[in-house]
Amino acid sequence: MSDLRPIGIFDSGFGGLTAVKEVIRSLPDEQIVYFGDTARVPYGPKSRETVVRFSIENILFLLKCKVKLIIIACNTASSVALSIVEESFKVPIIGVIAPGVLEAVNVTKNKKIGVIGTRTAINSGTYEKMIKQKRSGAKVYSTECPLFVPLVEEGWLNTQITKQIARQYLLPLKLKKIDTLVLGCTHYPLLKPVIREVMGKEVTLVDSARQVARQAKEILVKGNLLASGGNKNKNNLRFYVSDEPDNFAALGKRFLGFKLENVRKVSNV
Amino acid sequence: MSDLRPIGIFDSGFGGLTAVKEVIRSLPDEQIVYFGDTARVPYGPKSRETVVRFSIENILFLLKCKVKLIIIACNTASSVALSIVEESFKVPIIGVIAPGVLEAVNVTKNKKIGVIGTRTAINSGTYEKMIKQKRSGAKVYSTECPLFVPLVEEGWLNTQITKQIARQYLLPLKLKKIDTLVLGCTHYPLLKPVIREVMGKEVTLVDSARQVARQAKEILVKGNLLASGGNKNKNNLRFYVSDEPDNFAALGKRFLGFKLENVRKVSNV
Repeated sequence: MSDLRPIGIFDSGFGGLTAVKEVIRSLPDEQIVYFGDTARVPYGPKSRETVVRFSIENILFLLKCKVKLIIIACNTASSVALSIVEESFKVPIIGVIAPGVLEAVNVTKNKKIGVIGTRTAINSGTYEKMIKQKRSGAKVYSTECPLFVPLVEEGWLNTQITKQIARQYLLPLKLKKIDTLVLGCTHYPLLKPVIREVMGKEVTLVDSARQVARQAKEILVKGNLLASGGNKNKNNLRFYVSDEPDNFAALGKRFLGFKLENVRKVSNV
Repeated sequence: MSDLRPIGIFDSGFGGLTAVKEVIRSLPDEQIVYFGDTARVPYGPKSRETVVRFSIENILFLLKCKVKLIIIACNTASSVALSIVEESFKVPIIGVIAPGVLEAVNVTKNKKIGVIGTRTAINSGTYEKMIKQKRSGAKVYSTECPLFVPLVEEGWLNTQITKQIARQYLLPLKLKKIDTLVLGCTHYPLLKPVIREVMGKEVTLVDSARQVARQAKEILVKGNLLASGGNKNKNNLRFYVSDEPDNFAALGKRFLGFKLENVRKVSNV
């Protein structure tokens, strides 16, 4: 029994490609449909109500593509919309918060965990709540880093200015003596070298992309939904965006390390 | 004869409030309806096609409010959409590019003019084309400053980091010995102190808000559309946004200097 329907993944832009990369690695027989809402990016500074509405529109688009599983590869959308949409839709839907939390509580030794993310993700308090549920006695220190996304999009990954901004955001967390830092935004893994320099080698950086791919695999295995065996469209990737595809294709290469074919513009609303 | 219909003003977010301020100052008897597309902000990094579509949707919303004149108070939208929409709609529509250009060519002595703006505004080449049309022999030096908008939204108006970023963007323009710099984005006037520090006092900073209000007044006078005399709703301001109103109201105060009443959320699409 092989289920050839694709896995659907969406993000506000191209940041969710970090999840695509890990899904390709751990589930090489699966087809993937990705939707990046590049006409309305970013979600991070926008209200809970608006991000929930956008998320529902994105899910409805992916359902038209007959997906068997949806990954919300955007921390902001996961933090405010997942609990709502997983109640409403039949298709299994997973977000990127729980996988990151799981890894963080496994990794920490001193139970002091830092979380960085966008304004809406941090304000939602979702990380803090989930970490404390999974690990009683854990202390959570959260900080918004609104300039990190524009810095990544500008390509300033390792400049002096990026380092200074990182110091400004992160030194208060360092002073709290956290031993684990959750990178609560899909853009942040591209800033790992700078973040590691500020935080020091003794702090473990948790990036949820790998964990989310593992969770996706578990769901497919349990539900008997794997495409394994006989999938002629192996590694078939389709990308849809709401703005023009060119910029997405160019930036996407930076995330995936290969040229993106099949990037098409669609209207999801 | 008094035309009591409001003036419509739109922007991708709250930056266009700089134009509102000047319109209030020069046309105190007029009613104003403002639309800020805060659910889809920013327009600057998005494609021409998408910004044109958003602009048309915003204009259709303002037309429902029975406006007599529309000001596109967003440089990105003005640079790519104005030439298209002014052909299609009956209502007079003005943008913020031409007024800025007019002031720049009047002010410059050495005919070396710098322009800073968002990626899409700069890539459109609209400023360069219009400046050269108005002043033959002018040399135009344009630079994208993608981090300026996030810095303003973060409230980092005069920090060391903002100064360093400004130096990185602007020093190449200074080396070209420009005597005039067009602030081609409605957010940038809030960075004037930093920009002035980098460029030096001998460079004139041109901010189009004042000029656009003057142009609006001219059109109303010529078309016999003024509300002057007997407007009981003097200074009546209504604000509509596509995301939640709270953040807009808070940031808006920074631009206008007074508390914003009447901010309502609408769907413009």
